[in-house]
Amino acid sequence: MKILFIGDVVGRAGRLALSSRLSRLIDRHQIDLVVANGENAAAGFGLTADLARELYDLGVDVLTSGNHIWDKKELYPYLESQKRLLRPANYPAGAPGRGHGVYTTSAGIPVGILNLEGRVFMGNLECPFRVADALVEELRRQTPIILVDFHAEATSEKAALGCYLDGRVSAVVGTHTHVPTADERILPGGTAYMTDVGMTGSRDSVIGIRKELAVEKFLSLLPVRFEVAKKDSVICAVVLTIDEQTGRAVGIERVLEELAD
Amino acid sequence: MKILFIGDVVGRAGRLALSSRLSRLIDRHQIDLVVANGENAAAGFGLTADLARELYDLGVDVLTSGNHIWDKKELYPYLESQKRLLRPANYPAGAPGRGHGVYTTSAGIPVGILNLEGRVFMGNLECPFRVADALVEELRRQTPIILVDFHAEATSEKAALGCYLDGRVSAVVGTHTHVPTADERILPGGTAYMTDVGMTGSRDSVIGIRKELAVEKFLSLLPVRFEVAKKDSVICAVVLTIDEQTGRAVGIERVLEELAD
Amino acid sequence: MKILFIGDVVGRAGRLALSSRLSRLIDRHQIDLVVANGENAAAGFGLTADLARELYDLGVDVLTSGNHIWDKKELYPYLESQKRLLRPANYPAGAPGRGHGVYTTSAGIPVGILNLEGRVFMGNLECPFRVADALVEELRRQTPIILVDFHAEATSEKAALGCYLDGRVSAVVGTHTHVPTADERILPGGTAYMTDVGMTGSRDSVIGIRKELAVEKFLSLLPVRFEVAKKDSVICAVVLTIDEQTGRAVGIERVLEELAD
Amino acid sequence: MKILFIGDVVGRAGRLALSSRLSRLIDRHQIDLVVANGENAAAGFGLTADLARELYDLGVDVLTSGNHIWDKKELYPYLESQKRLLRPANYPAGAPGRGHGVYTTSAGIPVGILNLEGRVFMGNLECPFRVADALVEELRRQTPIILVDFHAEATSEKAALGCYLDGRVSAVVGTHTHVPTADERILPGGTAYMTDVGMTGSRDSVIGIRKELAVEKFLSLLPVRFEVAKKDSVICAVVLTIDEQTGRAVGIERVLEELAD
Ligand SMILES: [Fe+2]
Ligand SMILES: [Fe+2]
Ligand SMILES: [Fe+2]
Ligand SMILES: [Fe+2]
Ligand SMILES: [Fe+2]
Ligand SMILES: [Fe+2]
Ligand SMILES: [Fe+2]
Ligand SMILES: [Fe+2]
Repeated sequence: MKILFIGDVVGRAGRLALSSRLSRLIDRHQIDLVVANGENAAAGFGLTADLARELYDLGVDVLTSGNHIWDKKELYPYLESQKRLLRPANYPAGAPGRGHGVYTTSAGIPVGILNLEGRVFMGNLECPFRVADALVEELRRQTPIILVDFHAEATSEKAALGCYLDGRVSAVVGTHTHVPTADERILPGGTAYMTDVGMTGSRDSVIGIRKELAVEKFLSLLPVRFEVAKKDSVICAVVLTIDEQTGRAVGIERVLEELAD
Repeated sequence: MKILFIGDVVGRAGRLALSSRLSRLIDRHQIDLVVANGENAAAGFGLTADLARELYDLGVDVLTSGNHIWDKKELYPYLESQKRLLRPANYPAGAPGRGHGVYTTSAGIPVGILNLEGRVFMGNLECPFRVADALVEELRRQTPIILVDFHAEATSEKAALGCYLDGRVSAVVGTHTHVPTADERILPGGTAYMTDVGMTGSRDSVIGIRKELAVEKFLSLLPVRFEVAKKDSVICAVVLTIDEQTGRAVGIERVLEELAD
Repeated sequence: MKILFIGDVVGRAGRLALSSRLSRLIDRHQIDLVVANGENAAAGFGLTADLARELYDLGVDVLTSGNHIWDKKELYPYLESQKRLLRPANYPAGAPGRGHGVYTTSAGIPVGILNLEGRVFMGNLECPFRVADALVEELRRQTPIILVDFHAEATSEKAALGCYLDGRVSAVVGTHTHVPTADERILPGGTAYMTDVGMTGSRDSVIGIRKELAVEKFLSLLPVRFEVAKKDSVICAVVLTIDEQTGRAVGIERVLEELAD
Repeated sequence: MKILFIGDVVGRAGRLALSSRLSRLIDRHQIDLVVANGENAAAGFGLTADLARELYDLGVDVLTSGNHIWDKKELYPYLESQKRLLRPANYPAGAPGRGHGVYTTSAGIPVGILNLEGRVFMGNLECPFRVADALVEELRRQTPIILVDFHAEATSEKAALGCYLDGRVSAVVGTHTHVPTADERILPGGTAYMTDVGMTGSRDSVIGIRKELAVEKFLSLLPVRFEVAKKDSVICAVVLTIDEQTGRAVGIERVLEELAD
């Protein structure tokens, strides 16, 4: 079976890119389940219930997220109620929403999804390695097919979690840096791995933000109000091919879908 | 003309990979100048004069570096004397060595090289954007062909410097994360750009380090003595094709050279 | 001559404390010049022109600041025009306002004031040590009496700047942590030093913020809207006694003024 | 009953200060239990079994510690075996040693001690607030007299833990910054609180380190080998007076013991 995982959808440029090309990608790759990281869908900062619905309507089955998911307080009740929207599982007890779930494809295949957030250069969350131990175990009781979205900054932490879960999950893919890495491969234990899937939005930008504003920020070190860039939209994604019986990955293919402006 | 830029060479695994394949790569791509980041050549931590000579003997013309270049104090006099070894230019005045230079290919083409280090999640160095302004200006008085190795952690800072220098240098390539990115392209102003070239060393590892040790570190949060991994060596590099008259990039090609174990 | 330096004024609680007790403190200690750090005067986050005028009306002669001075964009023109309001001098060129000045007491004594910000655990500003070298030199051409407000987090960086400027300025006092230190003393070269003056505001709080909100933030790791606390107001300050001829400090006395609720 | 808590003992200067004055302090204040933070006793970096014994021989009853306790690997077996030596309790499971214990004074009074480490600007440990919840509960089953050493950098985190535990423990005192704060007081719920006790060692220094070396580090941003300073030794400590029946603090007195050179 095949999963399409789409990297952080950034603002209108990202949503338009999906609107224009997602159904084509699903057909071309014969995708069974579409997962997208939606933490930047609302003008680069967070998500709203309306935008989540828009993404579901475009063909996304499950949304994962990351540190920006808390940007809009009005989302919190929706996080509680919408089972197809995940936030990183390793926030302290009491955070709205959930970080893992099992979802069934239209062909009836159950897929476990786990969302985690890194700690290096980020917040003081619970240990993602130990939280993964517990939740992967729980998911494995329901299905051998498990996808982990590890939303993290440091390549070392992402690679280490990949090694740590190798053989226990179908795939560990990274998000958050908004730049796709060229290291997609299947680890010795059968887990597909890619440090970062990249982002879906304007490529002629600084990780999705208008480049003039990003440069101004680095030069001035003063607060700058960021705006999402518009030109040169791309979808950064990855297609994971997984053996349904064993949950082992048999293929991982990086996808770059470029839209003419 | 063509430059081969090789990402951080990590320990013996990285040096052996170059020993086995560098001359072949030079031939295959008809390379005029070979630049490699050598900050991790000495067992993952720093560089020595002997290892620098070893890398020059293997065909490297110029070595750049980064934050780890200070790991071995015995290197400091060599940094002062060896013009073909650069350290990031934006260290405070008084640091041993230099961060930029002009080097001439065997065909007589002068190439300016500038090494910078990022500040996001790293040290409090001088502003890499402003140091680049000054040193790019200086280099452009000698040659239009200029390569920048931006040794930095954050994708945002790297992308912003690429945009900032677009049209003023031939290429901005990143190092430090040890993972190659799949975003190599030519920016609108004619500058080749790639967020990170990746590393040259053992791929079956956590960014070059034995994976058991890296996982132990993340689990225990105690000091762990790191050792360089050995298996599954790769060379991560990029071939830059540059118009000699204008200095504009006309091609950028990511290179992954895999060695059978 | 005597300078009263008042630590970060936090919100209404801090302003009310000054309103109630500043004139008394000036009389009691026979103060020639009053300097206060105003970066948190506007509900804990930044400053406005109106609040600056309010503080001047209460008897403050010069306002210094720190990282929070940029919180309110509407202040920027005022920063440009009001010579008695300083922001840290080591922001990159182009930042609004200025970081040093010479002010004359009513008795006609010129006092140089320099505001700097630390980099450890803070932003990537210009080196405060080197900026101090240049600006202290400039101020010394006008007066031997020089006060430095070093707005910084790490005790090591603050102590090191104190040692570095010892004998060149009259006093180095720290701000930013909002907690007064008990290490006020005169260093061997004649410079008065105190790691942090503390804050002026509600003491029954977490550094000026309502304690329930601060605890909630540490427990949840989610965004929490902070509000300034009100109860148990104190003024944290220091009285510096300086020899007018030499600029050497002859006394440093910590001041804690407690208000009955 | 009275507890003397001594801030981070830094190198030989700190040990000599205790050797010369600890017994006098114990007598003067009629101390029942002496607790000292020993994380820097070994030349500024860590502790050894021999030095721990030296400190016990000088009159210290219990040693607490912090992030530097892991500097010397040879200490780890001793950490496991010596019940009177604590390391922060909120390291991940599997760390050598323990973070809390109950100790009995010579008069037979049981005192619970809990050592925690902060996370802001420090490592990604387990949540100190939640670990405190569990271990304070456990200690309270044995004694109402409980002392917490919170080894942390940020004043906000320290103040927040003080508020959080107010009324549940006898005292929360901070360590790690090596500078004593002047905010010792009894919180509304009866818990004695002080943000940082300061260090025991050379005051004519940068937090215990030779000042020339610390300044060199800030100027050069290169690795500098630190050495402990020697001159102007002080003991920074605090005397806690606690009601034995209720565990409530009835007094907190900051102590600065200066030794003539
Ligand atoms: Fe993102
Ligand atoms: Fe993110
Ligand atoms: Fe490296
Ligand atoms: Fe590096
Ligand atoms: Fe402040
Ligand atoms: Fe501040
Ligand atoms: Fe310490
Ligand atoms: Fe410490």
